[in-house]
Amino acid sequence: MADELSDRVQKEVESNGVKLYMGHSVQKIEPANGSLSVVCENLTLEADMVIVAIGITPNSELAVQAGLTTGIKKAIAVDRQMKTSDDNIYAAGDCADAYHVVTGEKTWIPLALVANRAGWAVADNVCGIPTALDGVAGTAVFKVFDLEVARTGLTVAEAEKAGFDPVSEIIKSRSRAHAHPGSTPIHVHMIGDRKTGWLLGAQMVGREGAAHRINAAAVALHNQMTVERFSQTDLAYAPPFGPVWDPLLTAANQLLKKLGRG
Amino acid sequence: MADELSDRVQKEVESNGVKLYMGHSVQKIEPANGSLSVVCENLTLEADMVIVAIGITPNSELAVQAGLTTGIKKAIAVDRQMKTSDDNIYAAGDCADAYHVVTGEKTWIPLALVANRAGWAVADNVCGIPTALDGVAGTAVFKVFDLEVARTGLTVAEAEKAGFDPVSEIIKSRSRAHAHPGSTPIHVHMIGDRKTGWLLGAQMVGREGAAHRINAAAVALHNQMTVERFSQTDLAYAPPFGPVWDPLLTAANQLLKKLGRG
Repeated sequence: MADELSDRVQKEVESNGVKLYMGHSVQKIEPANGSLSVVCENLTLEADMVIVAIGITPNSELAVQAGLTTGIKKAIAVDRQMKTSDDNIYAAGDCADAYHVVTGEKTWIPLALVANRAGWAVADNVCGIPTALDGVAGTAVFKVFDLEVARTGLTVAEAEKAGFDPVSEIIKSRSRAHAHPGSTPIHVHMIGDRKTGWLLGAQMVGREGAAHRINAAAVALHNQMTVERFSQTDLAYAPPFGPVWDPLLTAANQLLKKLGRG
Repeated sequence: MADELSDRVQKEVESNGVKLYMGHSVQKIEPANGSLSVVCENLTLEADMVIVAIGITPNSELAVQAGLTTGIKKAIAVDRQMKTSDDNIYAAGDCADAYHVVTGEKTWIPLALVANRAGWAVADNVCGIPTALDGVAGTAVFKVFDLEVARTGLTVAEAEKAGFDPVSEIIKSRSRAHAHPGSTPIHVHMIGDRKTGWLLGAQMVGREGAAHRINAAAVALHNQMTVERFSQTDLAYAPPFGPVWDPLLTAANQLLKKLGRG
């Protein structure tokens, strides 16, 4: 995520009384005088409770034992019908991989909708209703205190890794029309491909209007829209809900200039 | 708009103390004892002020006098470059017509983004930067007291008029995850074409999460997505923002069954 967006998240967390200690590796966690001590190289923190959030890995042990092919991060490799390397075995859920609609390559994104939809697809396929999934766009949102944080598609780093030539732009817009009371800033980071002009991804941060807005960009990714075509979409406007030009459209218009197409 | 959706709008208005008298034609408005009297056939209302909202028409008088071709509702007929029937005259704004991305036919939708974008396109074209507009999807939103009301694409009646064979479905979902506090109902009315399977339009009503959500369907319309492909899009999920299956996806899944494709 671009610095301007992650800075906003950091400030939201800190302004709510949460202290952040970034860039420290935890060496050990040990009991200390009835509480816990989190020990880093140049920092020791006392705590009543320690919650460890270091990401998750696919639970594919059973599949590996059964000899099924695994892929990225050892997730069970499945085709668009959710069929594994064994014609008689299907897999769905956080244990299975998926196709990314932007790269066309395999990805592993353990989120609820991906898993839930894949489960239905497996049920359809094993019951004789052929079902193939389009893939995932990497859409994800969360709320941190009063801030909405959203993303879809690729980050700049992911785009580079996938072989694109990403160009990105950050814009600051507003959640409501200029004169409408209660308007707050919305930041949009939008990424396009220099060669094809394709929209590759977008990230948004705002106190309102970020989470649901990201879906417009997600649908664009499913259709491999160029930034130019996306900039022409007829997005909703009314003063309580945004400026005449939706923040996503402003981002697309500005990104187009950098892509030499605006 | 489907009855279940318009009923919600009506209730929102009435619960805020506004009395509605529907189905009455105003015969005259006249002074009466220092106030105003609105006279209908079987109803007379006294008022301090009368606001008349009976829609608008394009202001194309000058264009007609200049001999330019006008089209639907006498809006100035323009091509995708906003050029009128005279090679040296362009038109943009509420006075000009536009192409509808769903029907491919001309339409006249006097909304801010349409007019604003067309103005920029005219400026580009007359300054030697060839610019063609994709068209409008008919996206519109408004807020009535605490209710968000949104639409994009065609209504059932508009779809029939355009030669489609519309099939529609209404679903009731929620604005947040089941167990999340503050969740309120969201109604979605989604319309598809029986013959092609295309998504034709959607309407939403809810206390939150209706206005921005409609943009996902609008982008789908720009890409002539089928309801089936739209049902596969990777829309955002987190408990504060909706159920695992976004209300638009639930609507698409249910509509698919009616279309015989789900």
